[in-house]
Amino acid sequence: MQQVRESDLPPVRAPDVVRRRSEDLVGRKDRSERLRVAVLAPPWFAVPPRRYGGTEAVVSLLVDGLVRRRHEVTLFASGDSRTEASLVSTFAESRSDDLGLTQPELLHALTCVHDAHAFDVVSDHTGALGLALSNLTSTPFVNTVHGTLAGEAGTLYRRVCEVTPGAALVSLTESHRSSARDLPWTATIPNAIALDDHPCRASRGGEYLFWLGRMSADKGPVTAIEVARASGMPMLLAGKVRGAAEQAYFEEEVEPLLGGGIEYVGEIDPEERVRLLHGARALVNPLAWDEPFGLVMVEAMACGVPVIATPRGSVPEIVVDGVTGWIAASVEDMAAAVERCTEIDPRQCRAVAERHYSPERMVGDYVDAFHRVIERAGRAIPLLGRTPF
Amino acid sequence: MQQVRESDLPPVRAPDVVRRRSEDLVGRKDRSERLRVAVLAPPWFAVPPRRYGGTEAVVSLLVDGLVRRRHEVTLFASGDSRTEASLVSTFAESRSDDLGLTQPELLHALTCVHDAHAFDVVSDHTGALGLALSNLTSTPFVNTVHGTLAGEAGTLYRRVCEVTPGAALVSLTESHRSSARDLPWTATIPNAIALDDHPCRASRGGEYLFWLGRMSADKGPVTAIEVARASGMPMLLAGKVRGAAEQAYFEEEVEPLLGGGIEYVGEIDPEERVRLLHGARALVNPLAWDEPFGLVMVEAMACGVPVIATPRGSVPEIVVDGVTGWIAASVEDMAAAVERCTEIDPRQCRAVAERHYSPERMVGDYVDAFHRVIERAGRAIPLLGRTPF
Repeated sequence: MQQVRESDLPPVRAPDVVRRRSEDLVGRKDRSERLRVAVLAPPWFAVPPRRYGGTEAVVSLLVDGLVRRRHEVTLFASGDSRTEASLVSTFAESRSDDLGLTQPELLHALTCVHDAHAFDVVSDHTGALGLALSNLTSTPFVNTVHGTLAGEAGTLYRRVCEVTPGAALVSLTESHRSSARDLPWTATIPNAIALDDHPCRASRGGEYLFWLGRMSADKGPVTAIEVARASGMPMLLAGKVRGAAEQAYFEEEVEPLLGGGIEYVGEIDPEERVRLLHGARALVNPLAWDEPFGLVMVEAMACGVPVIATPRGSVPEIVVDGVTGWIAASVEDMAAAVERCTEIDPRQCRAVAERHYSPERMVGDYVDAFHRVIERAGRAIPLLGRTPF
Repeated sequence: MQQVRESDLPPVRAPDVVRRRSEDLVGRKDRSERLRVAVLAPPWFAVPPRRYGGTEAVVSLLVDGLVRRRHEVTLFASGDSRTEASLVSTFAESRSDDLGLTQPELLHALTCVHDAHAFDVVSDHTGALGLALSNLTSTPFVNTVHGTLAGEAGTLYRRVCEVTPGAALVSLTESHRSSARDLPWTATIPNAIALDDHPCRASRGGEYLFWLGRMSADKGPVTAIEVARASGMPMLLAGKVRGAAEQAYFEEEVEPLLGGGIEYVGEIDPEERVRLLHGARALVNPLAWDEPFGLVMVEAMACGVPVIATPRGSVPEIVVDGVTGWIAASVEDMAAAVERCTEIDPRQCRAVAERHYSPERMVGDYVDAFHRVIERAGRAIPLLGRTPF
């Protein structure tokens, strides 16, 4: 494995790197009971995100959950993040304007790689670039694939894995994994949501249908509107319109269909999302692509709101047909499902969410994966006792 | 050093990777006389570029010059490239719409890294990402820095060099190198131009001033117009307006100054560039930043056209004051220099261009650098004789 070179140059650090120790780590002595975990978030949004940023929301739950289990956790994320872990920031502010660009992503990831020797494991959420750079350290990486593996992304992961002997990937669902079975998977770990922030409603019903997502054909807003029309229900659509392609799609395909009880309410914050979920007959999620996960479906479930979704990607694993909602392929079948939504018991939805999508379950799964890759890497595990939870 | 892992997975190749062997390599037997050189171009533009793409133009001259010296050369570039070398393409078409994005850049660079074991040296023109990935192979890399090292780019190079023991960088000018003296430089190799495509004019004079560049404040189009007004000369401005920021700059700062003999002619192709240079009194290049190189100044020089430029970045190394043009800091001094342009002998300009900026000189410098890093890497050099030129 590569070592950081012993250079004759003075050590150089990015001038804007800020190291902040959370108070609760000061005074800890017995590190043998804990894993030292570096969590590498993407640099594009704060952890947790202000509005948009599913990956950053999940990373936030993971980091704070690991801290609560008394692991020693350092989060590598932008300086506007809030965390119970130590925070190391390459950038004072998240770089959403530079989304996807090599320069900030590489600089951010190298900050973590440079420090990786101080950790037992790196939980990497930056995608293929982090995986490629994992070759630069002997500390094992657990790389969570948050995006689709269709098309070029899958090709890229295969290419990176060819040159990364210790690659250990986490998929979000079995569907996600099955789209690229040949990759070196170590676990399937479904995302979690902050259950406390998504309380369950008491009553069934609701006077409108709800759609939430990015404004792209993949997410099926037009089909959702067709379902509303076919079932004679009003509909609220929410979500950000990002970039020129989504703007064009919205103006050409969605906007002409608005009116007559079909309303677009724009981007909404998490509190508003819960409020609109609580008032909805159902969340309509007519995906036109194989989404690797679907946080919004889990949020609806936690809130006690039925989900009506097409059988694409993760849907058959997340929606329990007839219990937490309905899986239906056509507009007609989805409209028929709207009629039957009052059969869905909010308490059953909540129970499924609590059983499968709690942060505790997710954090436990990650700790198991960390131990597995640490053992495989042949490193001494400094965890002599058991984690408290 | 990392080795490509011996995986139990079947070898996977990006489905769109195309391998094309140039005919002139077929039948070669005595490879011991040649270096096996991989040249890794950026994936954003074809090699050579159709219009915009200074790096790709230089890479094209390097690749074809190495082939003419009978080295065994493989160019890693988009499939719309034209070369005398072998061509390996990750993408059938150049990815200019994705300029700067990690996903295509990483996939493209890994194609080269994956094959690097088959070469004596990799001449890398992809910037910091290629340098970071060079750790994945034992084949030495010579990494040419084509961009500025001011600000975040310099920070990134320092960070990558920290984790890259064998880093060997090429700067374009001494000014370029001096902006980051602490980096592991192996050579300063000025760019070259295709001298045959830039014939020298016979006569002095010309009835307008000429400005050519990206439409940004860095390149000084407003100052150039002020020089034209102060000297009472018409001016032609040429160059592409790329992206929202340049569009806004053009509309707010430049467009209001047009008229009265000051004309913007848009983006022009190489032939039109030469034609407009031949008719110009001088190229006015009032840089407001430390440009690492300035191809357009060398092109003017080759065409026998004086260059009037501010003493920033590479200018004092490229412009021979009083011989190939004038170095002047203020609008007044530049306007005074316009008066003296007829003192500049086109043949002297041409002689300087031929001496310092020929492809032969550049290719020779690169071959020297390749030998140096190959020797340092402790590898057997398969070149038993001398290269023919």
